[in-house]
Amino acid sequence: MKKKNAFYAQSGGVTAVINASACGVIETARKHKDKIGKVYAGRDGIIGALTEELIDTSKESARAIAALRHTPSGAFGSCRYKLKGLDENRAEYERLIEVFKAHNIGYFFYNGGGDSQDTTHKVSQISRELGYPITCIGIPKTVDNDLPFTDNCPGFGSVAKYVAVSIREAGFDVASMSRTSTKIFVLEVMGRHAGWIAAAGGLAAEKEGDAPHIILFPEVPFVQTKFLARVKACVKQYGYCAIVVSEGVRNRKGEFLAEAGGTDAFGHARLGGVAPVVAELIKSRLGYKHHWAVADYLQRAARHIASKRDVEQAYAVGKTAVEFALAGKNAVMTTIVRTSNSPYRWKIGEAKLSRVANVEKMMPASFITRDGFGITQRCRTYLSPLIQGEDYPPYKNGLPQYVQLKKVAVKKRLNTRFKL
Amino acid sequence: MKKKNAFYAQSGGVTAVINASACGVIETARKHKDKIGKVYAGRDGIIGALTEELIDTSKESARAIAALRHTPSGAFGSCRYKLKGLDENRAEYERLIEVFKAHNIGYFFYNGGGDSQDTTHKVSQISRELGYPITCIGIPKTVDNDLPFTDNCPGFGSVAKYVAVSIREAGFDVASMSRTSTKIFVLEVMGRHAGWIAAAGGLAAEKEGDAPHIILFPEVPFVQTKFLARVKACVKQYGYCAIVVSEGVRNRKGEFLAEAGGTDAFGHARLGGVAPVVAELIKSRLGYKHHWAVADYLQRAARHIASKRDVEQAYAVGKTAVEFALAGKNAVMTTIVRTSNSPYRWKIGEAKLSRVANVEKMMPASFITRDGFGITQRCRTYLSPLIQGEDYPPYKNGLPQYVQLKKVAVKKRLNTRFKL
Repeated sequence: MKKKNAFYAQSGGVTAVINASACGVIETARKHKDKIGKVYAGRDGIIGALTEELIDTSKESARAIAALRHTPSGAFGSCRYKLKGLDENRAEYERLIEVFKAHNIGYFFYNGGGDSQDTTHKVSQISRELGYPITCIGIPKTVDNDLPFTDNCPGFGSVAKYVAVSIREAGFDVASMSRTSTKIFVLEVMGRHAGWIAAAGGLAAEKEGDAPHIILFPEVPFVQTKFLARVKACVKQYGYCAIVVSEGVRNRKGEFLAEAGGTDAFGHARLGGVAPVVAELIKSRLGYKHHWAVADYLQRAARHIASKRDVEQAYAVGKTAVEFALAGKNAVMTTIVRTSNSPYRWKIGEAKLSRVANVEKMMPASFITRDGFGITQRCRTYLSPLIQGEDYPPYKNGLPQYVQLKKVAVKKRLNTRFKL
Repeated sequence: MKKKNAFYAQSGGVTAVINASACGVIETARKHKDKIGKVYAGRDGIIGALTEELIDTSKESARAIAALRHTPSGAFGSCRYKLKGLDENRAEYERLIEVFKAHNIGYFFYNGGGDSQDTTHKVSQISRELGYPITCIGIPKTVDNDLPFTDNCPGFGSVAKYVAVSIREAGFDVASMSRTSTKIFVLEVMGRHAGWIAAAGGLAAEKEGDAPHIILFPEVPFVQTKFLARVKACVKQYGYCAIVVSEGVRNRKGEFLAEAGGTDAFGHARLGGVAPVVAELIKSRLGYKHHWAVADYLQRAARHIASKRDVEQAYAVGKTAVEFALAGKNAVMTTIVRTSNSPYRWKIGEAKLSRVANVEKMMPASFITRDGFGITQRCRTYLSPLIQGEDYPPYKNGLPQYVQLKKVAVKKRLNTRFKL
C-alpha cells in the first residue's frame, strides 16, 4: 500500500492550547514516517481543504513545531464553516475527495468543538457513501467545555484558570479600596449556553468572604430583586462584592440581559456586554460605586497563564489521534477519561463521531448551589484538577515568544477552483 | 532620644506591586530595631491615622511580610482621601499629631501617587508649622506613570507588561480567525489623562504586521475618518486589525469618546467603556465583525504576570525610604533614576516633596508616531526595560497564593473619635 499523507485542520474559536494538539499530531506523525507521509494542514480549517490551500508542515523545523505547544491561537488559521449534509451539498464532498486524492491524503484529523466534530463525522461518511477510503479522527477542543463523552475539553482548563486567577486578583484589589471607593466589581466571561467558565471563577473563593461572592449562570434565570438583595448583603458583610457573570445570562423571559434594551451613541441596539448592564443596575438601585471588566478573547488566548494539565491533555488528544489512526480506528474522537478524583487521574479514551456530533453537554444542576449564585463542592471536585499546574511560555524582552510558522503552501495540483 | 515608631500607609488606586513596597519598608525597618520601634500601618491609608485605626505589623510573621512581595492590591487597605491644606482644615493636622503623639510615631511613610505625595508633603509641614517633629518620606506608586522626577512609577511596569502580553495574545487569536470570523479586536486600557499604558501595548508589535496595529492615545484627538481609513487599510493588508484604546481618548471637541452620547437600558447616560464605542463605530461604517475587551482592574491587579523589574523597583523604593529616614533625610520622595539605556541601569534617587506634589508627568510628544497611531523607537527604548523579567507568585491548587494579613489592631489610646 502506498504511504498516505495526513490532513490536519483547526476549526471554530481558537484556544490557548489548540496548537498543543497540533504539536501532538505533527510530532507523533513524524515518529511514524514509515506509515504517514506528510502532514498537510488546512489553511483556515476545512476551507483549506476545499480551496486546496494546504500548508506543508514538513517545511517547519522540529523547533517550530515544538513551539506550537506554548503558542495560543490557531497556527494554521481556523474557520467558522460548517459542511452541509451529503444530500444537501454533494459538491463539497466531491471536492474534498478530489483534493484528498490529488494529494494522496488518507488521514483526516479535525480539531474542534461540536460543529467541527459534526464535520469530521460527515467526512468520515465519504468513505462509505462515495467510496473514498479515509481514516477520520476527531480531536476535541472548546473553551465552552460542552462536548459530550469527554470528561472535559482541551482549552477549557486554561480559560478556567485565567478566570479564577483574574477574579481572585481583582477581588483583592477591590477589597483594599472598598472603604472609600469601588465596592462592586463585575467580571464578564464567556459561555453563551452553559456556565462552565463562570463556574470556574468560583474556584477562587476558597473560604467564606473570598471573591467571587456571586456567580451569574446562564442556567439560572436572573431575578433582579433576589440578586440586588444578595449584593447588598455582601457589601454589608464583606465591604464589597465581586461578581462573575456569564455572557449568556437571561432574565425570566429568556432574553439575554446583555440585549435587554437601550441604544448606543449611534442609535443602534446595545453593544453587548452584560457586565456594564449588571454594574449599572447595582449603581442605580443601590448606589454603590462600581467597576467592570469584559475579558472577551483575552481569556481564551491567555497562554501566559495556561493550565499545565490542559496543555498536557491538549497534546495527548492530538498525539493519540494519530496513534488511533495507525491502530486502524476510524470515525472516532479522542476523549479525556477521568479515572479517579482523588488523586485525580486521567487517560485518553474514544467516542464514536456519530454520537458526538451536535450534542451539547450542559452543566449538571448539582454543580450550582441551591441559591443559584455559587458552585457546589461537587463542582469544585470536577473543576479543580483542570486548572492545576502552570506551563509558562518562554519570554524574550519581557514578552512571551509565540511562534509564527512559515506556512509554506503545498503546490496546487488541481486546475479547478472551488467557490465557498 | 526615645526610639520612635513608624507609620506606613497605602493610598490611591492599588497596584500589583504596592505591597512589594510595603514589604521593603517593613523588612528594612525590622533590620533597624535599634532605631525604629514598630511599624504601624494605617488601615485604609491616611484614614487609619485620622481615626486611630492602626495595624501592628510586628504581629505579622516574617513569612507573611515576605509574601507581600508577591501579593497584589493594598494589604492594609487604601483610600481616596486627600488632606486639605493646613489653612483650610487645621483640625485634621492637629488630629494627626494627636494620634502620632499617642503612638510615639516619628516616621511617616506614605505610598501613593500625585495626590498622595501632596498629602505626604502637607504632613511634612506639620513639623515646622505645628512644632511636631516627624520624618516624612514619600514612596512612589501609580499605574498611570505620571509622577514627576522619577523615571517611572512602580506599578506601571506590571500594567505595561499585562497590556503588551494581552494584546499580543488576542492578536494571535484574531489573526487565526479573521478569514471567516472576527476581523477587529479592541482592547480598552486605563489612562484617563496620559497614554503611558496604551503606549505599552505597542511593545507587542515587534515587526511589520504584528498586533496592535493602532493605538488610540488621550494625547491625540480622535478623528473618525482618519481612524476608519487606517482600520480599513490594516484589514486589507493583514486580514485583521488589533487596536489598543486608552479610556481617556477624546474627540476634537475634547469630549471623552466613552461618553459621547447614548443611553443605556435604564435610560442613563452610557455606561462608560470606550472599547464598545470604537468597535461599534467600525462595525457600522465598515461592516467588520468585531470583539472588544475592557481590562479594567484586571490590568492593575495582575500580579500573576507582573514585571520582575517592577517588583524589584517597588521593593527598592520602600526599602530606601526607610534608609533615607534613618540617614536623616526628610520631606523627600524616593525616585527611580535611569542611569543608562543600553544596558538599562537604574538606581534610587530622591525628589523634594514640595516639587513633586500635584505635578503630572505627561508622555513626550516624541513618543508618538507622526500619524498618531503608534509609538516611536524612543518610546520603546523607554518602555522596554520596564517590562523585563517575570516574577511568578507561588501557586497552590492551580491558584496564586496571595497573603491576607492578620491585621491586628493597635489598642487605641485616645478617648476622642475623629469624624471624617
